[in-house]
Amino acid sequence: MGREIERKFLVTDESWLPLATRSNAFSQFYLFAEADRSCRVRIVDRQFARLTLKTGDGIDRGEFEYDIPLDDAKALRASAVGRLIEKTRHFVPNGPHTIEVDVFHGGLTGLIVAEIELSDEAEAFTRPRFLGKEVSGDPRYLNRSLSLHGLPSG
Amino acid sequence: MGREIERKFLVTDESWLPLATRSNAFSQFYLFAEADRSCRVRIVDRQFARLTLKTGDGIDRGEFEYDIPLDDAKALRASAVGRLIEKTRHFVPNGPHTIEVDVFHGGLTGLIVAEIELSDEAEAFTRPRFLGKEVSGDPRYLNRSLSLHGLPSG
Repeated sequence: MGREIERKFLVTDESWLPLATRSNAFSQFYLFAEADRSCRVRIVDRQFARLTLKTGDGIDRGEFEYDIPLDDAKALRASAVGRLIEKTRHFVPNGPHTIEVDVFHGGLTGLIVAEIELSDEAEAFTRPRFLGKEVSGDPRYLNRSLSLHGLPSG
Repeated sequence: MGREIERKFLVTDESWLPLATRSNAFSQFYLFAEADRSCRVRIVDRQFARLTLKTGDGIDRGEFEYDIPLDDAKALRASAVGRLIEKTRHFVPNGPHTIEVDVFHGGLTGLIVAEIELSDEAEAFTRPRFLGKEVSGDPRYLNRSLSLHGLPSG
């Protein structure tokens, strides 16, 4: 179990791209997607699968992650709520932190979101210019919401 | 992943008790408890914990089980829906099968339910006299229902 503090931003240019040191293909869906709790299955690079339980809501959440067999993940997909989310996650070093830049595909093409994990909500970090509007508090940009409702309008 | 076919009966006497070869203490709760899917956390003998996803409904369901750290299970308890179920499961050999007799405690004291797992719905088995009314099709006797709604009335 871990607790994560994440701040989330829309990404408005591609200046991060040459800075990325690693990327992974994520294919993920929800078995449960409620406001205060969710259960997600993520397949990474078509090879590994992980089950994640998130509890609580807002910027400070509980998270429990378990590796599961890839075949389980494929079988569970039939029970998904919402749509499958496909995205590429790029890892961009930023001082002592790593910014994760998620480039969405499929029905969410055009959306690029960056997340930075901090040790507490007030922790300072160097803000690179590719970070646009902060959407940390906007529930429409939760992956759960994107899965259930698609791209935010406006 | 496995698929299980289970038939469930109320237990009306204690003739099974001397036949039991093993018993475990189960303390369990649900993180999600919907009609067609659930996510359960079970602590066995206060030592081991397991997360179980069930999909589908009725007599034929999909089941996915993962061992998780005991500390995770304890932390997740704060996010339970419904009440904690505490029961002792006794394993009673019955020909080629094993009958699991669940003796409920706490707010469900008085309820004793027996389950037998079969390879298909039509498989025959010797029916010992301690098996009372069959409740396989009665959703009130699902552990999920017992957690959310308590003892069936009437």
